[in-house]
Amino acid sequence: MIGLGLIGGSLLRAASAVGREAWGATASEADAQAAAADGFDVSTDVDAALRRAADQDALVVLAVPLTVVDEVLRTVGACAPRCLLTDVASVKSPVLRAARSFAPETRFVGGHPMAGTAESGWRAGNSALFGGAAWVACVEDDTDLAAWAEVARLALDVGAHVVPLTAAAHDEAAARISHLPHLLAAVLATVGAQGGPVPMALAAGSYTDGTRVAGTRPELVRAMTEGNREALLPVLDEALGRLGAMRGSLASTGGLAATIKAGYEGAQAFAQAREATPAGVRVNLAAPEARAGLRALGERGGRVTAITDETAIGEVA
Amino acid sequence: MIGLGLIGGSLLRAASAVGREAWGATASEADAQAAAADGFDVSTDVDAALRRAADQDALVVLAVPLTVVDEVLRTVGACAPRCLLTDVASVKSPVLRAARSFAPETRFVGGHPMAGTAESGWRAGNSALFGGAAWVACVEDDTDLAAWAEVARLALDVGAHVVPLTAAAHDEAAARISHLPHLLAAVLATVGAQGGPVPMALAAGSYTDGTRVAGTRPELVRAMTEGNREALLPVLDEALGRLGAMRGSLASTGGLAATIKAGYEGAQAFAQAREATPAGVRVNLAAPEARAGLRALGERGGRVTAITDETAIGEVA
Repeated sequence: MIGLGLIGGSLLRAASAVGREAWGATASEADAQAAAADGFDVSTDVDAALRRAADQDALVVLAVPLTVVDEVLRTVGACAPRCLLTDVASVKSPVLRAARSFAPETRFVGGHPMAGTAESGWRAGNSALFGGAAWVACVEDDTDLAAWAEVARLALDVGAHVVPLTAAAHDEAAARISHLPHLLAAVLATVGAQGGPVPMALAAGSYTDGTRVAGTRPELVRAMTEGNREALLPVLDEALGRLGAMRGSLASTGGLAATIKAGYEGAQAFAQAREATPAGVRVNLAAPEARAGLRALGERGGRVTAITDETAIGEVA
Repeated sequence: MIGLGLIGGSLLRAASAVGREAWGATASEADAQAAAADGFDVSTDVDAALRRAADQDALVVLAVPLTVVDEVLRTVGACAPRCLLTDVASVKSPVLRAARSFAPETRFVGGHPMAGTAESGWRAGNSALFGGAAWVACVEDDTDLAAWAEVARLALDVGAHVVPLTAAAHDEAAARISHLPHLLAAVLATVGAQGGPVPMALAAGSYTDGTRVAGTRPELVRAMTEGNREALLPVLDEALGRLGAMRGSLASTGGLAATIKAGYEGAQAFAQAREATPAGVRVNLAAPEARAGLRALGERGGRVTAITDETAIGEVA
């Protein structure tokens, strides 16, 4: 585990709790001391931790902020150049490009556990963080499926289910359901506060819900949104187009039926997607079409829930 | 109580629970039957209920959908033309105008309890709905302060605190912290669902929070947003301006620092407003400047927490 913040620290705890041999390193003295005090095998010597991983052919998990991924990947390229490697960053295409540039011989599988809180640092973590969460494990055309299965097993071991997607498909979806929500929450929190003390005094459920993630540390939000610029721009334009049409309708006819009906139907679609009864699916990881099979599962909203021998067992509604 | 849906039904229960004599009427057979089965004094004869209120000089509370307020106000004007009257609608200026047109001799005080759920109808109600909620009681230049105090006492009796504001100040604030959140949630729910099954499968906290109120009944959201068109348009333009600037910045420099920092500061301002230690304030309701004093309290984010004799006792941070 390289990085022992909220995600890395939770994963070190969770992996240890299920009996995996796991060790960590971080540039943060504070996180290293806190993790050591909790009895974990950690240090601030990232190079040494990577060399140990290379020696033991261990899975290396990069759980560092997106802003330092390039730098840490260079270190991986130097200290563990052919290691089994994954990451947990909230944007996947830039990390894939960086891994290909700076650690091209690693068996790299991009990953993203869709879990977290507004907190950060070792002390914010807990071994149950990934229970019930979706964990994207990327499948590109050149992905080593043995490496993919190793990453998926780790995610499954700590209680998540695995969603196989390309980095590009992940980033497009993340723009819609994570990055756009953060930006709308920021604008809502700004417009609310601009109104002075009266709106602050009257705010109730809709405002509290709509602004909750605006309290996230700004550097985290910047890293994920700015890092996903390519996928985020068209999604932002889609939202702006709908908001502009709504504004025009309110100004002209005074009617908002189309906007509100579409939103209600979207909310129903989301609720239905959560409640749908899934059917079982199996993907033979040794088959030539395995990558396409995994991606098709993810693209249909499905998930892998177990891996046995060479078969990924999943479900899709 | 005219109207026995979520708000009217909860208020009938809550007023009865604190020992007030209360009765209700509704055009909804279903709500009337359900309320009667629960032991309340209700009927479907709105005219008779209003005449009884006129006879006893009781406080009439209109808790009907905004779309039928005009019609019910005409009935009030006919059956209880000089009654003590309030309402609970989510937009205050249109109701004030309608009361002046259709029931001009009533002692009208606009009201809005900032409480509710996505549910509706008698069965969704409960007597604790208003506990801890802000309840706006409008103070216009011609407001009868004895009537205002009666409305405020009802709100205080059922567990709310009272925010004195003009209808216009309420509507401006409501646009920021209720109507804009509903419209942003609708657009987010639409853009999320437009992405197909992948975003629906990956959605977690930020999306769930940001779209929660998009599941509200569309006719309720239409009534409050379309009914507040005048105050909502400039607030919507403020949001669109910020979103457009953000889009431009992402497209050109790729930076979102300004948007995200402003949102974070807005979220901090909201948290601070909630945590601030208030100081006591008293407003003598018999003094000539009482209306100005009450409005100043509300405009500073303050609240009335008790009324004794002719004094409103409040607090403001």
